[in-house]
Amino acid sequence: MSSQKTWGGRFSEAPNELAREYNASLNFDRRLALVDIRGSLAHVRMLGARGILPEKEAEIIENGLLQVQGELEAGTFPFREEYEDIHMNVEARLTEIVGPVGGKLHTGRSRNDQVATDLRLWCLEELVRLKALLGDYRRILLDEADKALERGLILPGYTHLQRAMPVMLAHWFLAWQEMASRDEARVQDAMKRVGECPLGAAALAGTGFPIDRHQTARELGFSNPMRNSLDAVASRDFVQEVLSVLQIIQTHLSRLSEELILYSSFEFGFVTISDAFATGSSIMPQKKNPDIPELIRAKAGRVLGSLTTISSVLKSLPLAYNKDLQEDKEPLFDAMDTVQSSLRLTAALLPGLTWHKKPMLKAAKSGFSLATELADWLACKGLPFREAHHVVGAIVKYCVQEECELSDLSLETFKKFHALFTEDALRLTSLETAIYQRVSYGGTAPEAVKKAMNEVRSTLNSK
Amino acid sequence: MSSQKTWGGRFSEAPNELAREYNASLNFDRRLALVDIRGSLAHVRMLGARGILPEKEAEIIENGLLQVQGELEAGTFPFREEYEDIHMNVEARLTEIVGPVGGKLHTGRSRNDQVATDLRLWCLEELVRLKALLGDYRRILLDEADKALERGLILPGYTHLQRAMPVMLAHWFLAWQEMASRDEARVQDAMKRVGECPLGAAALAGTGFPIDRHQTARELGFSNPMRNSLDAVASRDFVQEVLSVLQIIQTHLSRLSEELILYSSFEFGFVTISDAFATGSSIMPQKKNPDIPELIRAKAGRVLGSLTTISSVLKSLPLAYNKDLQEDKEPLFDAMDTVQSSLRLTAALLPGLTWHKKPMLKAAKSGFSLATELADWLACKGLPFREAHHVVGAIVKYCVQEECELSDLSLETFKKFHALFTEDALRLTSLETAIYQRVSYGGTAPEAVKKAMNEVRSTLNSK
Amino acid sequence: MSSQKTWGGRFSEAPNELAREYNASLNFDRRLALVDIRGSLAHVRMLGARGILPEKEAEIIENGLLQVQGELEAGTFPFREEYEDIHMNVEARLTEIVGPVGGKLHTGRSRNDQVATDLRLWCLEELVRLKALLGDYRRILLDEADKALERGLILPGYTHLQRAMPVMLAHWFLAWQEMASRDEARVQDAMKRVGECPLGAAALAGTGFPIDRHQTARELGFSNPMRNSLDAVASRDFVQEVLSVLQIIQTHLSRLSEELILYSSFEFGFVTISDAFATGSSIMPQKKNPDIPELIRAKAGRVLGSLTTISSVLKSLPLAYNKDLQEDKEPLFDAMDTVQSSLRLTAALLPGLTWHKKPMLKAAKSGFSLATELADWLACKGLPFREAHHVVGAIVKYCVQEECELSDLSLETFKKFHALFTEDALRLTSLETAIYQRVSYGGTAPEAVKKAMNEVRSTLNSK
Amino acid sequence: MSSQKTWGGRFSEAPNELAREYNASLNFDRRLALVDIRGSLAHVRMLGARGILPEKEAEIIENGLLQVQGELEAGTFPFREEYEDIHMNVEARLTEIVGPVGGKLHTGRSRNDQVATDLRLWCLEELVRLKALLGDYRRILLDEADKALERGLILPGYTHLQRAMPVMLAHWFLAWQEMASRDEARVQDAMKRVGECPLGAAALAGTGFPIDRHQTARELGFSNPMRNSLDAVASRDFVQEVLSVLQIIQTHLSRLSEELILYSSFEFGFVTISDAFATGSSIMPQKKNPDIPELIRAKAGRVLGSLTTISSVLKSLPLAYNKDLQEDKEPLFDAMDTVQSSLRLTAALLPGLTWHKKPMLKAAKSGFSLATELADWLACKGLPFREAHHVVGAIVKYCVQEECELSDLSLETFKKFHALFTEDALRLTSLETAIYQRVSYGGTAPEAVKKAMNEVRSTLNSK
Repeated sequence: MSSQKTWGGRFSEAPNELAREYNASLNFDRRLALVDIRGSLAHVRMLGARGILPEKEAEIIENGLLQVQGELEAGTFPFREEYEDIHMNVEARLTEIVGPVGGKLHTGRSRNDQVATDLRLWCLEELVRLKALLGDYRRILLDEADKALERGLILPGYTHLQRAMPVMLAHWFLAWQEMASRDEARVQDAMKRVGECPLGAAALAGTGFPIDRHQTARELGFSNPMRNSLDAVASRDFVQEVLSVLQIIQTHLSRLSEELILYSSFEFGFVTISDAFATGSSIMPQKKNPDIPELIRAKAGRVLGSLTTISSVLKSLPLAYNKDLQEDKEPLFDAMDTVQSSLRLTAALLPGLTWHKKPMLKAAKSGFSLATELADWLACKGLPFREAHHVVGAIVKYCVQEECELSDLSLETFKKFHALFTEDALRLTSLETAIYQRVSYGGTAPEAVKKAMNEVRSTLNSK
Repeated sequence: MSSQKTWGGRFSEAPNELAREYNASLNFDRRLALVDIRGSLAHVRMLGARGILPEKEAEIIENGLLQVQGELEAGTFPFREEYEDIHMNVEARLTEIVGPVGGKLHTGRSRNDQVATDLRLWCLEELVRLKALLGDYRRILLDEADKALERGLILPGYTHLQRAMPVMLAHWFLAWQEMASRDEARVQDAMKRVGECPLGAAALAGTGFPIDRHQTARELGFSNPMRNSLDAVASRDFVQEVLSVLQIIQTHLSRLSEELILYSSFEFGFVTISDAFATGSSIMPQKKNPDIPELIRAKAGRVLGSLTTISSVLKSLPLAYNKDLQEDKEPLFDAMDTVQSSLRLTAALLPGLTWHKKPMLKAAKSGFSLATELADWLACKGLPFREAHHVVGAIVKYCVQEECELSDLSLETFKKFHALFTEDALRLTSLETAIYQRVSYGGTAPEAVKKAMNEVRSTLNSK
Repeated sequence: MSSQKTWGGRFSEAPNELAREYNASLNFDRRLALVDIRGSLAHVRMLGARGILPEKEAEIIENGLLQVQGELEAGTFPFREEYEDIHMNVEARLTEIVGPVGGKLHTGRSRNDQVATDLRLWCLEELVRLKALLGDYRRILLDEADKALERGLILPGYTHLQRAMPVMLAHWFLAWQEMASRDEARVQDAMKRVGECPLGAAALAGTGFPIDRHQTARELGFSNPMRNSLDAVASRDFVQEVLSVLQIIQTHLSRLSEELILYSSFEFGFVTISDAFATGSSIMPQKKNPDIPELIRAKAGRVLGSLTTISSVLKSLPLAYNKDLQEDKEPLFDAMDTVQSSLRLTAALLPGLTWHKKPMLKAAKSGFSLATELADWLACKGLPFREAHHVVGAIVKYCVQEECELSDLSLETFKKFHALFTEDALRLTSLETAIYQRVSYGGTAPEAVKKAMNEVRSTLNSK
Repeated sequence: MSSQKTWGGRFSEAPNELAREYNASLNFDRRLALVDIRGSLAHVRMLGARGILPEKEAEIIENGLLQVQGELEAGTFPFREEYEDIHMNVEARLTEIVGPVGGKLHTGRSRNDQVATDLRLWCLEELVRLKALLGDYRRILLDEADKALERGLILPGYTHLQRAMPVMLAHWFLAWQEMASRDEARVQDAMKRVGECPLGAAALAGTGFPIDRHQTARELGFSNPMRNSLDAVASRDFVQEVLSVLQIIQTHLSRLSEELILYSSFEFGFVTISDAFATGSSIMPQKKNPDIPELIRAKAGRVLGSLTTISSVLKSLPLAYNKDLQEDKEPLFDAMDTVQSSLRLTAALLPGLTWHKKPMLKAAKSGFSLATELADWLACKGLPFREAHHVVGAIVKYCVQEECELSDLSLETFKKFHALFTEDALRLTSLETAIYQRVSYGGTAPEAVKKAMNEVRSTLNSK
């Protein structure tokens, strides 16, 4: 082409080839092959049932599709780059098998509603898997909480990465369980929006063929056909929602990973990650790098990047289908894979953690983390809380000067700071007693923790 | 301070002052003033009811809080920078009013659960408002669809910004309605997660006071107290979820705005935006700049920025409270305000649009957008769809050469391309007939559109 | 392992395998194979030259590396999944070839400085390529401007997507050239930061071996060795900077693509994209979907996603190397590929565009875009500019009422609006005259455009 | 208005008022007031010099502008909401002062080039300030390195948050200095792109008035006028670039903050943050929350959000000015303020840190971080490095079993692992010796650190 000669001398690649490659999606949308077949099967059965195609032809196409499905499952399907996407690959193969009648499969639909249907089917399958993984993860957190409670493991609770108050390790496990539980609920809710069927919206305006969209929707496991054909082919808010949900899950996993990295450092020394999930260094056998938690942490950034991509792509995009929408798949696929494998790995490494009771306990006891107990006790006796704080603050200051712990002080000393103090108060400076006090609903007292565990377990079992 | 002398010569500002300012949040968290009072009222009533505070004292504090509330509502509350945040401002004022007993309000809670409670209360109030705005918007879209159907307005449906197939303008309105309807469902779902109460989690471990968290949760309109104290003070996934939902809404509004900008351009000429929502130019009275749609479009980027901020802040943050969490408020407040005002404006400008029937119709007719009808017709007669496409493609090419439209061709000419053609087929080249054909569920035929409108209207009314 | 039995029943995959896969980077870091060899060659030569290794051994290793390089170039290199990354793959192969002496290659370096060196070498190579592509693109824009000026092509300049003032198409081409020119300068500047050598920083602290970092830096084409070993292995601001630069380039390309999509719509009708860069529809031969510009537009979102990923990964990461840094490669590679191919395609499609003179001119003339000329003229005659605007505004209103254009009015009519008007003013209502007036530096008058073209051309040639 | 009645019943707010508020920018663009005056002064002087305005009138306007400038500086300027932006506010006030002749100021320019000029002027001023802050910060890092070297402070260098190798604290300070030095270079480079002048591009096409753009550019401190009028008013890549640079700086500060948070935890215990930059807790005087570092860390997310906003806003925006561009200011202003105050605070808190020599040294010594030294020594003696690693690995394992440190072993024991060992090797197990070995360029040996400090200091002084 003469117009290409003009610039041809400057580029080594032929433009057509470049454009073809840039356009092609087979490389990633081949993942949709099986759901594409499912969608086509439902469509052709409906065409047959409604008499839009003769029964015979519908049957031929159906059998052809089943053969293609078989090839895909057996790994013998001939993917061909010259058909740019998975839909054309499947149709080309179908036509090879059944002859020109294969062309009738496309009656009353278009690639626009087809790809939207495929992507929703894919999401539904993956969301079911994701939900199961979240369930597994929650059960493991609960089991670990159980074990930790049995061993009576205690660690400091932190604010600002400063020791604040002692908590049961079981309580810590249950905190992550709560987050996962909300994550699961979000997955469930997203499925409602994903689970509506665009098939039959055709290019954008619906079709004149007497199709039955309720039948195809039902057969494919959707709750209902989408109510507007323009919306059906143009909207990708379901992708944004799924990515938002994934991004929140990965954020939670990154926070847990951060704590594991901290706790397994030499400085904290609370936990050892099992060999299977850490890498060593050839010279330093004591060195275990928490590679897996580090990667999980980083991948929260990756999933955020995917959400940014799709949201930026969709911004101010006019209706209905635009080629820009092809960019919805890679970030979605990547984020789904990332979150699922991160969940699997987190769930897998938790049971292999070795928690070190002594250093955890020692850390929980030091740092005057029990001072609040004393202030609470004074408040109970009638002192305004802010005043009680002030009194205990003075006691702590005294301890710092004397280089002792609260539990080293006698009742007499306490009384010097406030006349209200009695023997009762002294008992509070013992860690165990202090933890047993926090029985408020959701609190860290073993009693409260056990109650929470039972509540959660009954929810999990009832499913 | 000597350490400051070292670098003091290099900076003009005193460091303490800088640090104070950097830390301060009163500037933005004053928005939480009224919900902060609500939370405190519920808390002190519970303290009284449970005998943790003497009835008398609880009453004094309650009355003090009500007075503070009155001052806030009257605009006479003395905000003071020296108390860095809204919580300290309220407590300081309370103590001025009721004396040292005000310090007892803080019994059994901490600022960590207090601020989490406040932010959730604020979200709930705003989500209720947001839901109502979405409802208003949906009703307006429905009304506009009604009007458009009555006037029989038709415009081209686009793919790739190329004319593809004609659609009823009412159908176009309903597409946006569907998106808004899903947006509303997402708001509703988010409220479930927001609507759990952290109050009573105290600093992070619960409390030893015999508080009743179910009572405070109930009084504040939450569905239940949160089940884990660590999770209650450390988690902000509710902020991420709300921002995700907001970001999807603004994306939808940006897409609608883009279409209005296009349609109101001289080149499209489909619609005129009313003076109230456009700005003119002092020299060019014909020029109406669609400022409002442009800003709405841009603000989808702004809301995405807010979501990015919070997600990046939360990534790999250890439990429980960290000062980083202070950065959750500004992006949330800004995004909520942005989306609410964008919704209000979109809803407000739609009824003032003037749709120009003639140019829309002309555009819908040209561009061979009816070619698909003919292909469908041939397919109905038994031709494989791909083959039918080929035949019609040849006819269109012929028209392009002869510089005529499909409706200009005689039956004879059609028959040259395929023997199957009959008079019936010719009728399809008329735009009106063609649109009336697309009666599939969710299609653009007026009959189908009317059905959809009725379905939607019944949903809206039933609420 | 017993710890795995605990949860094994719940997961189908073996954890070790999962962890191995999650950790592995060979899949993407194989792209670094050749630069890895280059780095090793420079390192081993230096080890020999400094007598750290005996000359003989250094030579053996060097020859071994050259053989590996040959295998890589020939495509016969045996990539093996069991060595998790490219560095271990290369080293394993080297040792197969030269025996245990291969282990001495790692003297005085570690994987931390090695991977940082590799990634910087890769970046430098790609930035050189990127710069060349920007140069090609700029030359093409200049050539197209030339052609457009020769044909005297004029189109409306838009603000708010409303016709504002006519401009030469050549001027429009030069606007994109200016953006590309700044993009090129940014690439150049980024190369300064990328072009410093981390090799020899070893694990993080430097080494006790008497290595010569200046020699290796020089041999590898770096400007100098990095000055601090901790910084050298821990920093990835060069990745952030490269991604920032890429993101700005893709933003520019997305804006150009948007204009091409608009201009090639039926409504604008200014330009036709050549068949090689558009896809047709099998039934609608007149329909050319601007797939390539649409994808380029979308990919600005994709590159933004990559930038978000790396920035979020790096945020608050402690020194020095953390496994999180492994996540720097995929977004970088993907963004670099995306921008390079987008640049190639944009440059390739521009010469094939067919610009339609008549509709462009018609659009440029209508819409009273010349009104400003008249106001300027009045201002020249001494009227305050705001007042001049007012007078012309009244004239335009009059035209709208009378359904005529400014050029239809007589001098008499003009004089009714202001006595200052003379014949001179009337000439301004002709489009061509008006454009010829805008001779200010950087203006759209052909004369000014030509001057700009010459300035740019001399810059381009001088390189 | 009747169109508003239609929906009026559904909304409480009047639409016009809403639209006005939504459109208004005075609230944030008032920051541009002084640069707006500067731009206008340069413009009117040029108009006078070129005879476009009579000298007399130019003088009157100039004096009027100077009076407005005085009012702004004195804080007496009457900002008025009814003029939606700062430009209209200034012009309205000018006209009040000088009468209708004030309208002539706008001759040969438009709001489009005016606002672009203002924003670039603002950026230039702020970038100069930012550069100075980076310089201050670098000097402080250097001073702190000096002090640390004098005290001989040593701490462990970490990889994967595991102790890896000991480093001088001075070396650690210099690592941050290197990052800041690159940040400064990026600021410098960005100024080249920011420092071009759009003034005189007028609405988008240039002007017919014989303006002198080189004069105004020069007077305003720009390097040159921008070469293309379309580009001049439509481009905001300078905003993207400035935000990219800011985002990288804040990332660096977030990493330093993270380390300070870790190092000041009870578990690490390396450093105490001075009271002026930490907040205490009323009951726990030993508890110092590192609020400032936590906020600095979080704000890296905030700046990333701002960059995301502007990049998403600019994506696929057609030329030239669109109202969307109004959204460029808030993210830019916010990010610039955030980074400048974060820099000031970081620089201010560093000199007040108290480093605890003993725990740092103890941590540096433990954890077998010296094992690498031994392996290097063996490699020096001729053992292949991988084999040397293996030998030392076995020794470390032995120590772990025997619960001793490497320095506890006798030569005999060493010889059991490899015959090559001599007394020389034993000396390496002393921390101090080991650090002194790492003299490679950029290494952590005090000698190498001193050299680096001198290099840096000479660069800093030469400016």
